Amino acid sequence: MTPNDYLDAHQPRFLQELLAFLAIPSVSANPAHRPDMARAADWVVARLTAAGAENARVVATEGHPVVMADWLHAGADRPTVLIYGHFDVQPPEPLDLWTTPPFAPDLRDGRVYARGASDDKGGMLIPILALEAHLATTGTLPVNVKFFFEGEEEIGSPSIPDCVRAHAEALAADMIFSADGLQWAPDQPQILEALKGILKLEIVLRGPRADQHSGLHGGGITNPAMALAQLLASMKAPDGRITIAGFYDAVIDLAPEDRAAIARIPYDETAYLAETGAPAAVGEPGYSTRERLWARPTLDVNGLTSGWQGDGSMTVLPAMARAKITCRLVAAQRPETVAQAIRDHVRAHTPAGVTAEVTISKGGSDPLLLPAGHAAAAEAAAVLTEVYGRAPYRTRVGGSIPILSTFRDVLGLQAVVLGFSHDDENLHAPNEFLRLDCFRRGQSVYARLFERLGGTVRR
Amino acid sequence: MTPNDYLDAHQPRFLQELLAFLAIPSVSANPAHRPDMARAADWVVARLTAAGAENARVVATEGHPVVMADWLHAGADRPTVLIYGHFDVQPPEPLDLWTTPPFAPDLRDGRVYARGASDDKGGMLIPILALEAHLATTGTLPVNVKFFFEGEEEIGSPSIPDCVRAHAEALAADMIFSADGLQWAPDQPQILEALKGILKLEIVLRGPRADQHSGLHGGGITNPAMALAQLLASMKAPDGRITIAGFYDAVIDLAPEDRAAIARIPYDETAYLAETGAPAAVGEPGYSTRERLWARPTLDVNGLTSGWQGDGSMTVLPAMARAKITCRLVAAQRPETVAQAIRDHVRAHTPAGVTAEVTISKGGSDPLLLPAGHAAAAEAAAVLTEVYGRAPYRTRVGGSIPILSTFRDVLGLQAVVLGFSHDDENLHAPNEFLRLDCFRRGQSVYARLFERLGGTVRR
Repeated sequence: MTPNDYLDAHQPRFLQELLAFLAIPSVSANPAHRPDMARAADWVVARLTAAGAENARVVATEGHPVVMADWLHAGADRPTVLIYGHFDVQPPEPLDLWTTPPFAPDLRDGRVYARGASDDKGGMLIPILALEAHLATTGTLPVNVKFFFEGEEEIGSPSIPDCVRAHAEALAADMIFSADGLQWAPDQPQILEALKGILKLEIVLRGPRADQHSGLHGGGITNPAMALAQLLASMKAPDGRITIAGFYDAVIDLAPEDRAAIARIPYDETAYLAETGAPAAVGEPGYSTRERLWARPTLDVNGLTSGWQGDGSMTVLPAMARAKITCRLVAAQRPETVAQAIRDHVRAHTPAGVTAEVTISKGGSDPLLLPAGHAAAAEAAAVLTEVYGRAPYRTRVGGSIPILSTFRDVLGLQAVVLGFSHDDENLHAPNEFLRLDCFRRGQSVYARLFERLGGTVRR
Repeated sequence: MTPNDYLDAHQPRFLQELLAFLAIPSVSANPAHRPDMARAADWVVARLTAAGAENARVVATEGHPVVMADWLHAGADRPTVLIYGHFDVQPPEPLDLWTTPPFAPDLRDGRVYARGASDDKGGMLIPILALEAHLATTGTLPVNVKFFFEGEEEIGSPSIPDCVRAHAEALAADMIFSADGLQWAPDQPQILEALKGILKLEIVLRGPRADQHSGLHGGGITNPAMALAQLLASMKAPDGRITIAGFYDAVIDLAPEDRAAIARIPYDETAYLAETGAPAAVGEPGYSTRERLWARPTLDVNGLTSGWQGDGSMTVLPAMARAKITCRLVAAQRPETVAQAIRDHVRAHTPAGVTAEVTISKGGSDPLLLPAGHAAAAEAAAVLTEVYGRAPYRTRVGGSIPILSTFRDVLGLQAVVLGFSHDDENLHAPNEFLRLDCFRRGQSVYARLFERLGGTVRR
């Protein structure tokens, strides 16, 4: 029996295991789910051990636990592969938009619907299953493997840099693959050349001490909600260009050959609009929609809160208005530099009559750009070509995986993203799902990757 | 015995009656208090009858009951005065901030502490007592009087316009006095020349069908929260001037003599900032703070809602962003006209890539401005000057009393606000109280007003 036969034979069990994993509401953002985070970590330890991994253990951090494990019997002349993923999930709200409850995984149309199905519980399970398939059929593995699964990815991994530094020796490897990632399409693989960095912040404007009667005080004092609107509007021109002084300074602009490579990948704006439901694709002038999404920095308001939120009206002049913001950064922007530019902008543009407070959240990360000729990326591309029967597109993405910057900084390795989710799977939204055929294909890719890498000699 | 002697002699009984009235928890906003609303209405009917009023009756509406009564024996050549007040009260919550329970009226320091003491049970009792003083001492009254007391003021009087229309003939009068109102200070009367109207609306911008991942879609499509900020900012210049085309068109600007009258009333900006806790009093240029508060139309954002509202960050590009807005209007603005100007503005200024929906809420009202030489106001001012020994300030207020617009529209009369509460009496807040000396002084004012008006001949 080959590893691939084993994967075929055990797929029903793997699916049941995935459903059990998805039923754990491991929402890292919500402190009420702390016990569920611990349960999820224990589940991962048990699953790694069942697959034949050794030293599977929960590692405490200042925040949510990490799970580490390894299998290191391929020999010192074989490469060591570090595999990354995460077992925490986004909050499921708004619950009323889910067809079936987010933590009651539901199988329909060859997909499993649940919060975390696509991001990243399905993905992180895939390499564990590939390990099991090798060990169960051949009793060995052609490469040394280490696993590092975290529980803070959806909140920006605040405790993870310290944890990686503390375990840098245990995590030392020759290459890193992230099992948290996307393929281009079910029939078209990709290699991700660049990810955006991220900077998260909150701006709070305060006016009166408490909410005031809008009739008795309107016009007399500044309305913090309107002041926030004015401040935010000062950050972005109507055409979509960010107007914060210095914001674009460090950006490595797309070279003509980069733009040509992007233009070669099919793009259908009508399909993009149908996917998102947006009425138009609008943004920074001078760049195509895909160039903006992939290679231009952004500033997005993630949330606005002020005054009366409920039904009907309440005629208050709010005491406070808050905006949550994320900037997505491209090489060679740095979160600290952009944060300072925003602080300076807020200082210069806060309307009179309110005070402003800018809080930079933990969990910022640098953008990543894969260097030309990266060896692990070349191996992954070769396996993807074998399994899919098509060469991967060389793509970029607007998302951020902060942990990859940490790996680069601490372990000196640029990770290759090798996941099997797709961007139409409602990641971070209601009705998240994972395609089961892609879940299966990913197992083949990792099983084959272990074989191929086992045929190489340690650099 | 004069009416005023009678008032002196019976003050202890009147106070006991007020305490009994205040003990009824007639909270119109809380359906659990429906029986108490009925009890309060019955109490008012009985008290009017005891005072000598005729035809005192509970009148059913679609909501809470109204109480009507009259005394119409002064003769057809004497004017008929309609008196308005309300016997419902605000909810008492938060209860733990009350020194004594809200519905166990407590006398201390020459004040009665109870929910509704100031707003408006004390106020609406005053003219009833003045009526009694006349009838008990002289057997007659020099004017015809009608009473209209409602039970929905604190919930926006939803059933009252229909009720007033249905009883327009029974309510026909030559002048209206509202017993729900404030004096400037215990030793300084006022005549309220203007109240602002109100227009309430919601603006909802929609982009993608559901919240999107801000990394995967940021920069590609318009962010509704940022678009809302840009749209709102387009409505108000940084200096506070509203920039909606046509917004100010119908405004009757302050004449130099109006501005001089306002400037003569003491104003302490430091005290105003201490009261609100705002860091500065900022608004439309060219007008003093008090002019803005009293006589300029406003546009206030009452609430902002978009995307992630909770703690921490959630990196969404929101599907929707909503602003709740109230405009306070001054004569001769009309809510419908301003609503259309806002609709036109939104249509012209909504950023590309989102759709906008403007919803005008029910409960809008016209501004009110007493015409120069208003006879009833002149009589009230003369009586206030007599009783207080000081001429009243001619004031305005930024708040709205929608019922007064209804009276104007249905009965063709501009009401004169003649109440004896004060804005420091914790209206709508814990530890509401009424000053007993002002309660007494109000009785003298109404008793004297009836005499004076009886000396006039029907217009």
